[in-house]
Amino acid sequence: MTEDYRSMWTDLGLDLDAHDALLGVLGSAYKDIYLAQKNRPEGMGYFDFVMSEVHGLRIKELMDEKAAGGKIIGSYCVFVPEEIALAANATLVGLCSGADFAMEEVEQLLPRNTCALIKSAFGFKLGKVCPYLESADMIVGENTCDGKKKAYESLGHLVNNLYVMDLPQMKTDNGKALLKKEYLRFKEAVEALTGVSITKESLKSAIGVVNAKRAAIHRLSSLRKADPAPISGLDGLLANQVFFYDNPARFTASVHKICDELEARIQDRKGAFPEKTPRILVAGCPQAVPNWKLPMIVETSGAVIVGEESCVGERGTRHLTDDTGSTLDEMMDALVDRYFQVDCAIFTPNEQRLLHIREMAAAYKADGVIHYGLQFCQPYLMESIPVEKALEEKGIPCLRIETDYGMEDMGQLKTRVEAFVEQLG
Amino acid sequence: MTEDYRSMWTDLGLDLDAHDALLGVLGSAYKDIYLAQKNRPEGMGYFDFVMSEVHGLRIKELMDEKAAGGKIIGSYCVFVPEEIALAANATLVGLCSGADFAMEEVEQLLPRNTCALIKSAFGFKLGKVCPYLESADMIVGENTCDGKKKAYESLGHLVNNLYVMDLPQMKTDNGKALLKKEYLRFKEAVEALTGVSITKESLKSAIGVVNAKRAAIHRLSSLRKADPAPISGLDGLLANQVFFYDNPARFTASVHKICDELEARIQDRKGAFPEKTPRILVAGCPQAVPNWKLPMIVETSGAVIVGEESCVGERGTRHLTDDTGSTLDEMMDALVDRYFQVDCAIFTPNEQRLLHIREMAAAYKADGVIHYGLQFCQPYLMESIPVEKALEEKGIPCLRIETDYGMEDMGQLKTRVEAFVEQLG
Repeated sequence: MTEDYRSMWTDLGLDLDAHDALLGVLGSAYKDIYLAQKNRPEGMGYFDFVMSEVHGLRIKELMDEKAAGGKIIGSYCVFVPEEIALAANATLVGLCSGADFAMEEVEQLLPRNTCALIKSAFGFKLGKVCPYLESADMIVGENTCDGKKKAYESLGHLVNNLYVMDLPQMKTDNGKALLKKEYLRFKEAVEALTGVSITKESLKSAIGVVNAKRAAIHRLSSLRKADPAPISGLDGLLANQVFFYDNPARFTASVHKICDELEARIQDRKGAFPEKTPRILVAGCPQAVPNWKLPMIVETSGAVIVGEESCVGERGTRHLTDDTGSTLDEMMDALVDRYFQVDCAIFTPNEQRLLHIREMAAAYKADGVIHYGLQFCQPYLMESIPVEKALEEKGIPCLRIETDYGMEDMGQLKTRVEAFVEQLG
Repeated sequence: MTEDYRSMWTDLGLDLDAHDALLGVLGSAYKDIYLAQKNRPEGMGYFDFVMSEVHGLRIKELMDEKAAGGKIIGSYCVFVPEEIALAANATLVGLCSGADFAMEEVEQLLPRNTCALIKSAFGFKLGKVCPYLESADMIVGENTCDGKKKAYESLGHLVNNLYVMDLPQMKTDNGKALLKKEYLRFKEAVEALTGVSITKESLKSAIGVVNAKRAAIHRLSSLRKADPAPISGLDGLLANQVFFYDNPARFTASVHKICDELEARIQDRKGAFPEKTPRILVAGCPQAVPNWKLPMIVETSGAVIVGEESCVGERGTRHLTDDTGSTLDEMMDALVDRYFQVDCAIFTPNEQRLLHIREMAAAYKADGVIHYGLQFCQPYLMESIPVEKALEEKGIPCLRIETDYGMEDMGQLKTRVEAFVEQLG
């Protein structure tokens, strides 16, 4: 990134020294983990560029949108409907982060036994290093897990524009009614923020934009079913991560371009790894940028990751929204129908998720599943036990890991992953 | 307890050897902790008897009720309305337990990082040592914290009569509507279980019985405001614990009898501890039988506990239900109004709890507050930080502790509590 952004970062209130340090670490991690990969599709050059400009050019674009009257809305969860933001001339950006920052300050506000994802969100705020967060005109929290639900009470004192969305805990009629009520309330809040009334035309168009983005990811995912896998799990994850930051139309076009290339690679039996490399499906907690710890370990241990059952992955993107509604209310209902299918572990019961993981393992021809649990993430750690059982019933090996953003357990994890991959071979 | 109960325990499917071991530990702990206390009110003899017969005579009574056509309903939470059970000729018993049991088996079903309360519930089931659980015709789980919510999914496979109650996460109109819906659904389930239709007469009577039980506890609590405190915190906690097991009418009468004695002690300036003993309010997670760890530490460290802000304490009992309704629907609304005030940390926001703790500290003339957090209990551990802040704003010292049911940290806790008490002196 060029020096040109420094005044923008200063205007956003970033701590330039801390931010420089973060970008330094991010840059060298990206180089060591991503650029060191062999047999990458050329199209990944686009994502390399996006990542190199993730705090630069993309933020500049957001600032330009703001200058032109648009609004930026930040979110920590796939339950916040991007369609509603887009339909009101706002841009939705993901705020989850995947690195520890300002941990000492964070632990003044949150218990030590809080998951790394939540701590990281606080660290990026307290450390003043997240230009997405600082540029957001509205930050949306949501009542998913206990950790996030209670953490937003503190976050509300750190930011002055927090909006909290309630969510159901059960997939009952009542739960669905709550989701609809909350989406209608969110729509009104977004309209009030932007001064733009959402129309059936604008919502239909927004649904189309987001469906297109998800459909592009579906195409990419589908190509990962080939053996040899035409793209690494690291690169597949990256595409799913950039999903939350990039301009939607450009993202869609860029993913399709990569897919064209991957189709050619498949025809040529050209893979990121050799044919018959053990294939792993990763299921569980979201992996936000720059949390590339698990795929790096897996893909330097003789296996390839072929899919992510995660918010940053198929759980977040698998369903499209019915765009055939002819009234605003029909389209709001279609959104509720679409998001109500998300099988987050906060729901009880959540049998659909077990079935979906089994379906994914079959569809992606996975030899084994690694359940990725963030330490202290009760919903996913609890559910990892029935997930393992559901897989064992089908004879699919499963390794449950529990980790955080630290590097202290790298050696131990690598040993466990290597032993697991060995068993699949 | 006499040998007479052994056939009853066998019929209930208890593991007699394991159960003997549990009762042995319970008995000697009770002797060391409770009977070793000095200056106890004579009326506590009643609770000593109840505790000595907690798995004996009381279970016999429940079995007699069942033989006479009544039903037993077990619950893990103060959100399950006892009034509805009583109104349908059922008896509600608390199932939460306060001791580790069968931990190796438990950790096959639950992550290690699960709070002791939940693990204990599973341990008592897996170890076959809880006659309340085994005698229950219906076991009610509820969507409070993530840990319990997800654990009930597994518990459902261990018991064949689990009923799960959904609960709101916010005190909104929508949240209240959900609670009402769920209480109506629970009423129907209880009626189906018992074959008894709840009438306005039976519900009014049940509200009266439970109000009387709570009013007796209010009287007892109020007497603890005196200096010297006429009763120890250990004994005060025990009364709040027995609240969940005993026959309601007998409990009410016994508490009033103790209160009569305490009033006389107050007049004579006779206390469980000397006048001007530093006074502690305990706030936070529930302490279920036989979890007497914290009060034992506090009251052997030169302080007296004068109140419990807990589900097993004032959070659970403080509100009475309006009994003036003249229709069933009015009375159901009164129940919803009553329970919707419970300021459990699962709610967001939950400012009322901070205010209530401050009010309690003032009312009970507490010199300091100890926030009791069970390890891995995210809602209360998260909320302990704003609690501490709210108390500090009023100049009230607060010690936040995080512990489990193990004895390994006793020394460390005692050191911290002693230092805290010293500072209050």
